[in-house]
Amino acid sequence: MKRFLIGISGGTGSGKTTVALNIKEEIGEEILILDMDSYYKDHSNLPFEERLKINYDHPDVFDIPLLKEHIQNLLEGNEIKKPIYSFVEYVRLKEYEIVKPQRIIILEGIFALFYEELRNLMDIKIYVDTDPDIRLIRRILRDTKERGRTLDSVIKQYTEVVRPMHIQFVEPTKRFADIIIPEGGFNVVAVDIVVSKVRDLFKE
Amino acid sequence: MKRFLIGISGGTGSGKTTVALNIKEEIGEEILILDMDSYYKDHSNLPFEERLKINYDHPDVFDIPLLKEHIQNLLEGNEIKKPIYSFVEYVRLKEYEIVKPQRIIILEGIFALFYEELRNLMDIKIYVDTDPDIRLIRRILRDTKERGRTLDSVIKQYTEVVRPMHIQFVEPTKRFADIIIPEGGFNVVAVDIVVSKVRDLFKE
Repeated sequence: MKRFLIGISGGTGSGKTTVALNIKEEIGEEILILDMDSYYKDHSNLPFEERLKINYDHPDVFDIPLLKEHIQNLLEGNEIKKPIYSFVEYVRLKEYEIVKPQRIIILEGIFALFYEELRNLMDIKIYVDTDPDIRLIRRILRDTKERGRTLDSVIKQYTEVVRPMHIQFVEPTKRFADIIIPEGGFNVVAVDIVVSKVRDLFKE
Repeated sequence: MKRFLIGISGGTGSGKTTVALNIKEEIGEEILILDMDSYYKDHSNLPFEERLKINYDHPDVFDIPLLKEHIQNLLEGNEIKKPIYSFVEYVRLKEYEIVKPQRIIILEGIFALFYEELRNLMDIKIYVDTDPDIRLIRRILRDTKERGRTLDSVIKQYTEVVRPMHIQFVEPTKRFADIIIPEGGFNVVAVDIVVSKVRDLFKE
């Protein structure tokens, strides 16, 4: 049984998670969504004050060797011990989550298309492209309403970190996409087109 | 039997024709590609010198009522009398081509996504997005090698007409696309994804 890897990238608030979830909802259990946020490097060797300064919007912050190994294992049909990252202590926890392989693995994250060694494993590369103002609106609403942050702190972080990192590292990975989906998860036709392809993959 | 309309747009040299042809090659006879270039307005009421000045890169130059009527006829399973436009005399000829309906109609052209009344008829809207320099290279090579034009005349026309019309009228229609295909017909994965969807449409 052949297994497939789909990469879904896009800026913060682009709707990439919704695209991934919509594909899973259409297809069902045979989809595994792997969120890159679990694969931050373990920073337990650094003192807490140093860990607070980590830029989580930079591509160097991910443990790509481990992520690559896990993806390869999943593609070979093996379960993995997915790390759990604590955003309280900013370290990788000793606990892990056992994740079973599925036929289709979706790697989802702002840097999903950044690393050549991961792109080389992908059968389909998708970039979800949404205007920056719409993405900012979604981020502001999410961070103020769901995460209890102040508007000022959200805008400060967005302006000083999220936006420059997006322009420098995320946006350029659009180059590597096979297809670009405008407006993310609310784009029913685009999701439908990808779902058709995924159903075809199952026949291989 | 349900019939479907797919719109494929993109700038000159984007590779949109190749995308349409690749889809047809994969699917076969049940695809009809309708090129918008046949639907220029009949300009026989104008003197020849006036006809020479017509801007063929402007959306007002198309006979949209006729095109819409023909698309609706094709979608209802009726054959059409497709007009033939003469680029020697710059008029619509008295001759026409009988075109039989197919299950999938692809409307292809730089303004395929421009007109709301045509977009409303479309099941899938595709924009083929290729960098301007790559598109210019393709246009220069095509017009100098295949059409015997001088480099200077190609660049003059591109700079004075094609480029401003693209920026003003074509590029903005990307907004209406359900999916964006980077790099056109050489993008095998994207064509493959669309082909999967078209095969699914046949089952409806």
